[in-house]
Amino acid sequence: MIDLKKVEDVVDKLANIEKICFVGCGASMSDLYPAFQLVKEKGNKISSRIFTANEFNYSVPSNIDDKTLVIIASLGGNTRESVAAIAVAKGKKATVVTITATAGSGLTKGADYVLYHGFHENYAAKTHKMQTALYLVVGVLEKFDGYTDAADFKDGLLKIDDLIIEGVKPLDKVAKKFAESIKNEPLIYVLSSGATYGTAYSTANFLFMEMQWLPAIVMNSGEYFHGPFELTEKNVPYLLFMNEGSTRHLDARALEFLQRFQAKYYVLDAKDFGIGNVIAKSVVNYFNPLILTGAMRVYAEKLSIARNHPLTSRRYMWKLENY
Amino acid sequence: MIDLKKVEDVVDKLANIEKICFVGCGASMSDLYPAFQLVKEKGNKISSRIFTANEFNYSVPSNIDDKTLVIIASLGGNTRESVAAIAVAKGKKATVVTITATAGSGLTKGADYVLYHGFHENYAAKTHKMQTALYLVVGVLEKFDGYTDAADFKDGLLKIDDLIIEGVKPLDKVAKKFAESIKNEPLIYVLSSGATYGTAYSTANFLFMEMQWLPAIVMNSGEYFHGPFELTEKNVPYLLFMNEGSTRHLDARALEFLQRFQAKYYVLDAKDFGIGNVIAKSVVNYFNPLILTGAMRVYAEKLSIARNHPLTSRRYMWKLENY
Repeated sequence: MIDLKKVEDVVDKLANIEKICFVGCGASMSDLYPAFQLVKEKGNKISSRIFTANEFNYSVPSNIDDKTLVIIASLGGNTRESVAAIAVAKGKKATVVTITATAGSGLTKGADYVLYHGFHENYAAKTHKMQTALYLVVGVLEKFDGYTDAADFKDGLLKIDDLIIEGVKPLDKVAKKFAESIKNEPLIYVLSSGATYGTAYSTANFLFMEMQWLPAIVMNSGEYFHGPFELTEKNVPYLLFMNEGSTRHLDARALEFLQRFQAKYYVLDAKDFGIGNVIAKSVVNYFNPLILTGAMRVYAEKLSIARNHPLTSRRYMWKLENY
Repeated sequence: MIDLKKVEDVVDKLANIEKICFVGCGASMSDLYPAFQLVKEKGNKISSRIFTANEFNYSVPSNIDDKTLVIIASLGGNTRESVAAIAVAKGKKATVVTITATAGSGLTKGADYVLYHGFHENYAAKTHKMQTALYLVVGVLEKFDGYTDAADFKDGLLKIDDLIIEGVKPLDKVAKKFAESIKNEPLIYVLSSGATYGTAYSTANFLFMEMQWLPAIVMNSGEYFHGPFELTEKNVPYLLFMNEGSTRHLDARALEFLQRFQAKYYVLDAKDFGIGNVIAKSVVNYFNPLILTGAMRVYAEKLSIARNHPLTSRRYMWKLENY
């Protein structure tokens, strides 16, 4: 479980927040997506913006100021562009909270507050960066913006790790089947909606493209119907993350289409993990990406075995000067 | 040229706007992206959110109210999800402006104001939906939010159509070469940044995937370096839209990487169209997608000829009940 008290301590110290900016790169930007989406949908006066770090650094929004909270995340804490964003935000007098797994890293320097999270301990820990960002903005919305579902949220966070850890246990067989079936495909499509769009983005861009060198196309389940569904054919592979909650209709409509045209589809459905029995309806939208990210990790591991390509293999990242 | 006066007349009638939501589907959502980005970067108190229509309809943000301007676009004006968004927004007391090319269509009913634009007249007209949305929010920002670059913006809009029409004239040969070279590729990557990300998204999802049945992966030029660049290899095809203005560094860095690893890259560079000589620096970021969208249309037409696949061919869209 994440250290809820440490997040609450940061919220206690914050003053006068009217705007939130989420800044990160790659998988860390995706991990901020559920919190971005929560503020986008539930913020009253508080606004929500998300940036890949270098777009924030080179095209700094004009209204970053002392009423702005900038939340910056990086797992290793040394992503150059994200570290640079601290100085950009502080230069505009924003309050900066960084989220990282790594003590002493670049992201721990120059920020107003640093929140640490685990990552390697278990499948639930893969979502602790997301959980930390979510609980931070829940606190901010409650303190400054009249948000009334914070208790439901906290209750959910007390339960979600067990739900993930128990939920992934029976996945080995189905994930292995997915991996064997998909291992020689030249391309896969990934669909989801709502807060889980970030998980779909992350799965396509980082689990598949970065870590498996497997081209992947991500799209919102709603957008699918406005053009890209033209590529749906028999046996073309699709991975669909289905949400419990308000955008389920979009995902279910996509599933129906994939079935109708006999695509080779794989579904990870938050409902299969019993999320609706454990998490309050008022906040369930934002717990979908947590359970689905944990589950997807099993699928990615099985894929890496089936393709004989470890998730840590890179040809460029960390190996080239300046990249 | 778009009818600036008609847009100004709508702005004159608006009162008390604090938030702007952009709602559309597919290519029409992309056409709203530059205006979304302008408000995101230059809004002072006014916030900016963008939605695919069904995500807006099924997961309605809690703070849509009588201080919210909802801008909804659809070329043909009968996209079911976008038409439904009018009632959703009006149900929450928002002011609704719709943008469409089609008199009498669903999008012209129930909105507070309707703005019409051309599309088929010439290459500049392909950007008139974008221009209308941009000029509308420029007016809103100036009237309610202290925006000071409206005169530069209007000056740019008076010049941009000629820049597009003259700029596309010499493209036939290079676009044909692109088309011949790319016509048998199984997949293409599309990169850009800033306001032009919407054009990259639109090119990948609609010109390539919907209208050419050619799989395409879109990404922000900044995000490229945080994982997906692992797939860059000799002769893998990339289309890069380069911007004049504040995010040019992100695009140029991507170009350098594509050159270094001998990808089969194609560049559409806003600088080649002389945009920097004609458009004021204060607003040039938001004119890049206009010139690049106009230019890309020529490339798409040549591609459709090379692949013997008209841009109007569909297998599902408009042909299935309920889709």
